Amino acid sequence: MQLGLVGLGKMGANMRTRISEAGHEVVGFDPRPEVSDVASLADLVGALQAPRTVWVMVPSGEPTRSTVASLAELLEPGDTVIDGGNSRYTDDAVHAKALGDKGIGYIDCGVSGGVWGLKNGYGLMVGGSDADVERALPIFDALRPPGDRADGFVHAGPVGAGHYAKMVHNGVEYGLMHAYGEGYELLAAEPLIADVEGTLRAWTQGTVVRSWLLELLVRALQEDPGLSEISDYTTDSGEGRWTVEEAIRHSVPANVISAALFARFASRQDSGSPALKAVSALRNQFGGHSVRDSAGRSVGETGSPPA
Amino acid sequence: MQLGLVGLGKMGANMRTRISEAGHEVVGFDPRPEVSDVASLADLVGALQAPRTVWVMVPSGEPTRSTVASLAELLEPGDTVIDGGNSRYTDDAVHAKALGDKGIGYIDCGVSGGVWGLKNGYGLMVGGSDADVERALPIFDALRPPGDRADGFVHAGPVGAGHYAKMVHNGVEYGLMHAYGEGYELLAAEPLIADVEGTLRAWTQGTVVRSWLLELLVRALQEDPGLSEISDYTTDSGEGRWTVEEAIRHSVPANVISAALFARFASRQDSGSPALKAVSALRNQFGGHSVRDSAGRSVGETGSPPA
Amino acid sequence: MQLGLVGLGKMGANMRTRISEAGHEVVGFDPRPEVSDVASLADLVGALQAPRTVWVMVPSGEPTRSTVASLAELLEPGDTVIDGGNSRYTDDAVHAKALGDKGIGYIDCGVSGGVWGLKNGYGLMVGGSDADVERALPIFDALRPPGDRADGFVHAGPVGAGHYAKMVHNGVEYGLMHAYGEGYELLAAEPLIADVEGTLRAWTQGTVVRSWLLELLVRALQEDPGLSEISDYTTDSGEGRWTVEEAIRHSVPANVISAALFARFASRQDSGSPALKAVSALRNQFGGHSVRDSAGRSVGETGSPPA
Amino acid sequence: MQLGLVGLGKMGANMRTRISEAGHEVVGFDPRPEVSDVASLADLVGALQAPRTVWVMVPSGEPTRSTVASLAELLEPGDTVIDGGNSRYTDDAVHAKALGDKGIGYIDCGVSGGVWGLKNGYGLMVGGSDADVERALPIFDALRPPGDRADGFVHAGPVGAGHYAKMVHNGVEYGLMHAYGEGYELLAAEPLIADVEGTLRAWTQGTVVRSWLLELLVRALQEDPGLSEISDYTTDSGEGRWTVEEAIRHSVPANVISAALFARFASRQDSGSPALKAVSALRNQFGGHSVRDSAGRSVGETGSPPA
Repeated sequence: MQLGLVGLGKMGANMRTRISEAGHEVVGFDPRPEVSDVASLADLVGALQAPRTVWVMVPSGEPTRSTVASLAELLEPGDTVIDGGNSRYTDDAVHAKALGDKGIGYIDCGVSGGVWGLKNGYGLMVGGSDADVERALPIFDALRPPGDRADGFVHAGPVGAGHYAKMVHNGVEYGLMHAYGEGYELLAAEPLIADVEGTLRAWTQGTVVRSWLLELLVRALQEDPGLSEISDYTTDSGEGRWTVEEAIRHSVPANVISAALFARFASRQDSGSPALKAVSALRNQFGGHSVRDSAGRSVGETGSPPA
Repeated sequence: MQLGLVGLGKMGANMRTRISEAGHEVVGFDPRPEVSDVASLADLVGALQAPRTVWVMVPSGEPTRSTVASLAELLEPGDTVIDGGNSRYTDDAVHAKALGDKGIGYIDCGVSGGVWGLKNGYGLMVGGSDADVERALPIFDALRPPGDRADGFVHAGPVGAGHYAKMVHNGVEYGLMHAYGEGYELLAAEPLIADVEGTLRAWTQGTVVRSWLLELLVRALQEDPGLSEISDYTTDSGEGRWTVEEAIRHSVPANVISAALFARFASRQDSGSPALKAVSALRNQFGGHSVRDSAGRSVGETGSPPA
Repeated sequence: MQLGLVGLGKMGANMRTRISEAGHEVVGFDPRPEVSDVASLADLVGALQAPRTVWVMVPSGEPTRSTVASLAELLEPGDTVIDGGNSRYTDDAVHAKALGDKGIGYIDCGVSGGVWGLKNGYGLMVGGSDADVERALPIFDALRPPGDRADGFVHAGPVGAGHYAKMVHNGVEYGLMHAYGEGYELLAAEPLIADVEGTLRAWTQGTVVRSWLLELLVRALQEDPGLSEISDYTTDSGEGRWTVEEAIRHSVPANVISAALFARFASRQDSGSPALKAVSALRNQFGGHSVRDSAGRSVGETGSPPA
Repeated sequence: MQLGLVGLGKMGANMRTRISEAGHEVVGFDPRPEVSDVASLADLVGALQAPRTVWVMVPSGEPTRSTVASLAELLEPGDTVIDGGNSRYTDDAVHAKALGDKGIGYIDCGVSGGVWGLKNGYGLMVGGSDADVERALPIFDALRPPGDRADGFVHAGPVGAGHYAKMVHNGVEYGLMHAYGEGYELLAAEPLIADVEGTLRAWTQGTVVRSWLLELLVRALQEDPGLSEISDYTTDSGEGRWTVEEAIRHSVPANVISAALFARFASRQDSGSPALKAVSALRNQFGGHSVRDSAGRSVGETGSPPA
């Protein structure tokens, strides 16, 4: 089938390749003329035969919102828009309403797999009506891993369910990565462990903790033993935060996912943790505990009891 | 080669099968005569040709300690004992010393894979001297998954390193399982998600969070949709506790693993959390907050200011 | 001075008493005629001389919003509204705008102290313009504890700052209460401690951990030794959730406050933790671990390896 | 009464002053001749009339152990040793046995209050036999805050109970300080809060969160606004670790106290968190996420999919 694809960044470009290789015709639009097939969003719509399917693969938030708004103006009843980006699920109802008012269908699709998806296929989590999802199945089948459709694709529920599932997926991802991180740190701290990378590698087959992420961690350690080339400064893309916010909304204890999120926050406090400055100042106040000044020098015990 | 195997419980029996199928001769001893090849530990030793290799696969703690002590009496210089159970790594130096004083070698081996190891092979983490480990390699090769040895086996370091690695493995396992648990709970709490099991299944291929544990979770949900047949009461076998204790010893922040451990503790407080009783009592004291009595009835606001 | 007071519940009634005892004239309105001084909000406004000050002390959310909206209709330029409830700080800008458009001033005031405030005075955190706050100072002075104004009152910043400060106050309160709760639980678990209540009482003077909350905990234990009359079921009023949401917004690691919040969530899962059901199901799947069924019976090891 | 006091450091010297001012005779020994009343431990014992009471106030661990061992040699049946330091409670049974074998009594006493104890009195938590504790009451009464004995002193149980209570006290202290720290950090992060120090000060009277620690935090902020002179590097003296270890032993969920402990660990990782390096490396591996190199430079997206 024919697909319009808006956004040809790293993810979009890889997806175009995978969809094309499956035999579909992709017309891509990107603001960078050197990678774009057409000159404008209007041209993209003009280049597709109705009923059109347009996949939006641009940054979440304002870029996605304005693209969907433009498509609502340009498309026709019977067309379908798929938001494949990392939008917050609360945007989906808004998009579905704006498009639905004009007879245009809407699907939200969470896409996982990163740069490896080109080769392995992407895990897909989809929200929308049965009819809309049915129509787009050939594209989903092109993108997902080969094999049983249910192992890499789900129609999780109505509009919003796809991005909700992807959000939770990413929250779980935070927890998994941090669990491996703590294990790595502990192995590296213990003198008995002469071969940290080899130990992690030995976990990749047969063990209970084997996973794709673990294989990637071994790969990273092979490329950079001791991870000496990398900083611990770790950003977050929003979905971990949203997951914890949803946990709060649903009264779900999310101790593991929130701990992983907060550790990233802490990693970015380049001038130190204000909370721990307060703790250190308190210990100094009630006395008996040496502290460091802001230059890192030990300043001894300066707690001053009242005169 | 020949192997003496002490302990033919679920793990031991499966391992015997796997080792035998690889062409080795296994003489097994178990206190239950109906499953044992010999009548006593002494008979086991007598049935093996020197230099002997005896694999101990009994519960950690006292049972393992007393088995090793008996073997120290029965074996001869040049023989080797392998502790394949979940012993605390601090036991290993003791065992190595007691055996080494008599010229007997010692290897500690962490074994992961559970009941699936029979079919898939077991992940092995080994501590000991090069010579001792070298001599036992045929057995390790029989037990580990097929393919590259380094993907399911590691000689992690000197005596103790194998159990240390297994302990950390299990700590990581706690974190991974709880991360999936939180994700499952959140998906199940959200009405948009019409197909929780299908969503988790769709994560098993292509996504960043794919893993063997995730496949098992899908399997569990297929067998018992909604997990309605299972209690949340979750035991722990010791290695999670030891991992957090090691984290404390090495000053490693283990927020994720400890959160997973503490959640298990909380699941076993059948008469409620004393800490939260204290919190609830406090809220009642300063007033304005209704509480429940021990029978679960709301008893309104009973906070009593001073007369 | 004269004050209109909307809401004569537990907090409002106590505050009326304290303000009246300080020599001010309070005209109170409450939907329950038996406690109200006037028949309607309009009558309340009619009973006050301009420039009026009206303190709103009703539940946060819709009740406060509709009260403020009504007052915007009834009051005159130069009057002032004070929201003393536990509103989310994001409501304050909305209220200030709606009132300000009509020339009416607005102050948000966080009030802490519970039922003890009547006797001890209330801690007050205020947001608003200098002029508005200055005009209401006599009321704040009547409500706050005696002594130095700065020890129980702060003009923390512009509109919103008062409720923001109160929200953080409550978040901290969650953390403090849970820290004491954990300490209580640990003392109660240790056989060496023959006198748990006495130990906590001994902490109330001289120690680093002495506080008013600790005194309340001792009081609760004196009234109900062992806290046997109370359930661990613990509700939350919203401000703990908001605090964690703000921590996420500001990238502040809030491990302690979120742990205290999540523990309350867990205490309300009357049919068990879905996350731990998943963990327990996983342990059962990979085998070797007995689990409990939903009726709490041990069902042994049912993990089923593949055929 | 007469008291021998071993250790005249900051705490010991203050305690000597307070005990002397209560009318007791203190003979102090310290290895620094300029502050010591006697030349040796033997001289100290010689200077006291039987039955003697000797208070040991030296660093926990080896120094305390060797002092107690020496006293076991020097003292006579009927004498009593009090360990007032921060010993781990597991040392107490050992000390009590060694001394008891010679007819010498033993009391463990946790002391809280820091440099302020000289003025305010110290909170005391005591373990030992009724007879031993009874005999030492005059000293405890001199040290504790004035007023009701039960508000600053407890005979918590048999030998070990005093240090156990002090250990838990310190664990709670970790949680309390970190809760305030998180609140401080959040207030400082929010632009609406124009007066962070004033807000915390306003919490010191009337509010639910008022406490001595809060007063110290305000004092610290008055001395060093913004805490700009202090590093977040925060040490720990052992009792927080022991508290979490005890929580593990008793299966008590200690999420708050452990989070506070782990935050201190993290504050001391001067070359960054290995766990977060692993997380960052993983994000880089699966692509799409820019990372920082070890010098802090953004190195863009270097994730390399397979060829």
